[in-house]
Amino acid sequence: MIYDVAIVGTGPAGLSAALTLKLHNKEIIWFGSTLLSDKVGKSEKIANYPGVPMTSGADLNKAFSDQAKEMGLELTDKKVTNIADLGDHFMLLADNETFEARTVLLSTGIPQAKGMENEDRLLGMGVSYCATCDGFLYKDKTVAVYCTDERMDHDIKYLEEIASKLYVYTNFGYTSDADNVEMLTGPIKKLDGTMKCDSIELADGTKIDVDGVFILRPAIAPSTLFTGLELDGAHIKVDRNQETNYKGCYAAGDCTGRPYQIAKAVGEGNVAAHAILERLSEQAK
Amino acid sequence: MIYDVAIVGTGPAGLSAALTLKLHNKEIIWFGSTLLSDKVGKSEKIANYPGVPMTSGADLNKAFSDQAKEMGLELTDKKVTNIADLGDHFMLLADNETFEARTVLLSTGIPQAKGMENEDRLLGMGVSYCATCDGFLYKDKTVAVYCTDERMDHDIKYLEEIASKLYVYTNFGYTSDADNVEMLTGPIKKLDGTMKCDSIELADGTKIDVDGVFILRPAIAPSTLFTGLELDGAHIKVDRNQETNYKGCYAAGDCTGRPYQIAKAVGEGNVAAHAILERLSEQAK
Repeated sequence: MIYDVAIVGTGPAGLSAALTLKLHNKEIIWFGSTLLSDKVGKSEKIANYPGVPMTSGADLNKAFSDQAKEMGLELTDKKVTNIADLGDHFMLLADNETFEARTVLLSTGIPQAKGMENEDRLLGMGVSYCATCDGFLYKDKTVAVYCTDERMDHDIKYLEEIASKLYVYTNFGYTSDADNVEMLTGPIKKLDGTMKCDSIELADGTKIDVDGVFILRPAIAPSTLFTGLELDGAHIKVDRNQETNYKGCYAAGDCTGRPYQIAKAVGEGNVAAHAILERLSEQAK
Repeated sequence: MIYDVAIVGTGPAGLSAALTLKLHNKEIIWFGSTLLSDKVGKSEKIANYPGVPMTSGADLNKAFSDQAKEMGLELTDKKVTNIADLGDHFMLLADNETFEARTVLLSTGIPQAKGMENEDRLLGMGVSYCATCDGFLYKDKTVAVYCTDERMDHDIKYLEEIASKLYVYTNFGYTSDADNVEMLTGPIKKLDGTMKCDSIELADGTKIDVDGVFILRPAIAPSTLFTGLELDGAHIKVDRNQETNYKGCYAAGDCTGRPYQIAKAVGEGNVAAHAILERLSEQAK
């Protein structure tokens, strides 16, 4: 089946678009976390979102989640790691499964300012963004995992079971009792290797030989997610309709630039949804 | 006193900007109606505004109003009829009073697609947008009033007291017992006169001699409000920061274009507020 629209990301921008597209009975596949927005959920106080007086991020995220359920929106808890333009529609790769959609909305959150040294070059050559997809390749091998997304701690657990030796860096105080696990003293700064990633380097200069590295961040750099996507600095470049340089592919929310605000994300998601409706209706003619 | 920012319009875009600017302790003058948004208030159901599940427009408008009050935002219930760029700041004319502000946000709602024939040419020559301002000029004279904004029915009342004869057209079933009032059978289509408006013409061809005409609409055409403002069709042209062709003057919400949606307005108001904060901080250097 080809979906009308694939929405990548479950923050306020993705939700705003999903609500509008659902009202118009579009076939939606919505990728993200059932927790919706980790960033919203962790905000202490939100005072400037119209219609919801002074609230905690947790409460607002709960309201978002309830609203999505009431509207019958379903979430696909898979991580999109690659998107390709097939001319008249798009192909998305999520946890080794492919999905097809006529239009795409990227609402992936604040992009990585920059990756590790050599990350782009070695991606797919010993460097992976998805333990579920590529973990099996590293059975009984030495692996490093860099994780800054607490929701993905199950992926670390999975790697513990597979790898003979696992070096772990997280920014959320992950601990393990497993014998094969060693916590890194700091974040990974650089990846090394020519044909394949064969070692990592920490900020203090420590070098460690590995067979592979898993990088698990909340958001994948847009340029990695969708090759050829035009950027403006680290952000996805969009026009006033939120369309990217790929016709039919839109972006909304933090990934398109500052201000990193709920109201702005919600507005852009709405604009993108209307542009998508217009495009779908033109295609149907 | 020179305000940091003058916000023209109390719909969702204006409110969104006002909340953010108030949080940053800016000196705000906020022009509009204490009813906030007539358009929101009259919406039957709103299903796609994130954070507020399926609601009536009246309830959402009430929530907006309560939130504005809680945040200590004050409204100035005057109608801005003219804005001028004075180089390093702006001058606004509202009900014959002038106000000064370093930056301006236009959130004036859906613009008039087009005015009556000859309206632009005869404005200020027997044609007025403000009964409070210009009513006294028509004491004991024959006047026509065209009103499509129910909140301004007090202006019709005021003209009844002043004029010797008052022709009235409204789209909200206004009635009057006054002897000097005659209801028009349809809207005014054309204004006539060379140096001064001296007659009106209805859609059915009826011509009526008058000394003056008051046109009371919810929104004034942006080109009339601010001469030289660059438009895109009937909408105010803005960049990704919501800035117009006048540096320091921003626009947000329906007045910048479709979709005419609360989420879009709220998002643009937020973006404009952040651009304004940045500009004010640069000016302060």
